[in-house]
Amino acid sequence: MRLATVRRADRTHAAVGDDRGWVLFDEADAQELVGTSGWRDRAEAALRHPARIALEMQEFANPVPRPAKVFCCGLNYRDHIVETGRAVPEFPTLFAKFADTLTGAEDDIVVHNTDRLDWEAELAVIVGTEVHRADRVQAQAAILGYAVSNDISMRDWQQRTLQWLQGKAFDATTPVGPWVVTADEIDPNGGLRITCAVNGELVQDADTADLVFDAADLIAYVSQITVLRPGDIVLTGTPGGVALGMPEPRWLRDGDVVTTEIEGIGALRNTIRFDDGP
Amino acid sequence: MRLATVRRADRTHAAVGDDRGWVLFDEADAQELVGTSGWRDRAEAALRHPARIALEMQEFANPVPRPAKVFCCGLNYRDHIVETGRAVPEFPTLFAKFADTLTGAEDDIVVHNTDRLDWEAELAVIVGTEVHRADRVQAQAAILGYAVSNDISMRDWQQRTLQWLQGKAFDATTPVGPWVVTADEIDPNGGLRITCAVNGELVQDADTADLVFDAADLIAYVSQITVLRPGDIVLTGTPGGVALGMPEPRWLRDGDVVTTEIEGIGALRNTIRFDDGP
Repeated sequence: MRLATVRRADRTHAAVGDDRGWVLFDEADAQELVGTSGWRDRAEAALRHPARIALEMQEFANPVPRPAKVFCCGLNYRDHIVETGRAVPEFPTLFAKFADTLTGAEDDIVVHNTDRLDWEAELAVIVGTEVHRADRVQAQAAILGYAVSNDISMRDWQQRTLQWLQGKAFDATTPVGPWVVTADEIDPNGGLRITCAVNGELVQDADTADLVFDAADLIAYVSQITVLRPGDIVLTGTPGGVALGMPEPRWLRDGDVVTTEIEGIGALRNTIRFDDGP
Repeated sequence: MRLATVRRADRTHAAVGDDRGWVLFDEADAQELVGTSGWRDRAEAALRHPARIALEMQEFANPVPRPAKVFCCGLNYRDHIVETGRAVPEFPTLFAKFADTLTGAEDDIVVHNTDRLDWEAELAVIVGTEVHRADRVQAQAAILGYAVSNDISMRDWQQRTLQWLQGKAFDATTPVGPWVVTADEIDPNGGLRITCAVNGELVQDADTADLVFDAADLIAYVSQITVLRPGDIVLTGTPGGVALGMPEPRWLRDGDVVTTEIEGIGALRNTIRFDDGP
């Protein structure tokens, strides 16, 4: 099934859906829904009824709006590692984002004071149950599902110092969504095509089967360091094809439309806006 | 005045105090207290009454238990920068911690699976009002006050990859406290002695006036990237004298007592415990 957070009139709703449409819940968002006991039974019961509503893409907010932890893995597709001139790593390279960094599936991405703005299509892993010091099997069982994300990066800020955080933490610059496809329905290790296009031109085109550290590896690894809870997010890194890897980088400009898609999940479509000119 | 979060029987309380003792409030912690309107008038009124209670050091929890953002600045004292062999930077080096990373003033620091555990005495800056895209003057006005912290670091994990986060994010390893001294009472730029001792032996001894980027610089810089809100924390970096800088590092061992002190604020005293042997 699909789990979403949907904007309607003056509030948001958790929503559960499938190919035939959506059912809205009283909970304010998918993160709140999956924190309730028996949510899966309620969701499955709702999907047994034929009544569905259609939703506009702009209505899809980030499904999990209050993660206490967003871990991001850098350098995790073999081709992107080669692109940056590095060796295949023994350990995942991890950095953080904040809940405020995230935004919705079709929201404009409004930036300022950067002139090296880049895309990074990523598979997002959403945690469904508390997980601490887990092995791979326990980690896999703690995964709620998968969403599409784009770790839009201010490369000028990112490269000011040794630590990438400041180029990755601008408010409302990382779209997540459009919904979470639950882990029982999809297997990124089986190979899902992941793409990014800028104004319709394909710039990234890879396969989630090429991840060095897969979703269970990353959840298990992070869980050695800190507890993860429902709604926490792990972004699994981006494949080759970012502007930073080009001999003459094509940085994002005002009005550019970035489309990020993962086979079997869905697509994000975000327009770049500079509020102070590039 | 001093603001604290105090553990009593089955709950915590916000507490306001000075040299003569403490007054407890109904709010659960100092972060909740400073989120209420008129909190400063209530606190000052409470301190005009002579009734005070004494508190044990073990009762002091991290004063701000739910920061949505903890920014840490690396390489910010001139002597520590020299110790690591680097040049004085143009921009602050920033990385993140999570609320779960923090712990109380006298709490044991329980670690596992590390054999290069190090200390980092730091001045913590606590945000008091929402601040976004601020200049230095606005940033200074948004500072609630200052506390002592120690960014206990797993150097083996920190140095596994280019990004430091994983050596800095183990749960309940960064003490913050024992209380917040409000910004009207203390000026780190005027020079406050900051020290760290291990089992009574002084290992760090520096002056907060030697910060390359001071509290207002850091709040202003971070606020260009993301909004900061009451209870958010910026750790300002550590001076020279860490184990990592020693020709033959003296890593922390089970039972070591780490005392971290800043003149005019107070002292943390934490015992290191390995739950799986060093």
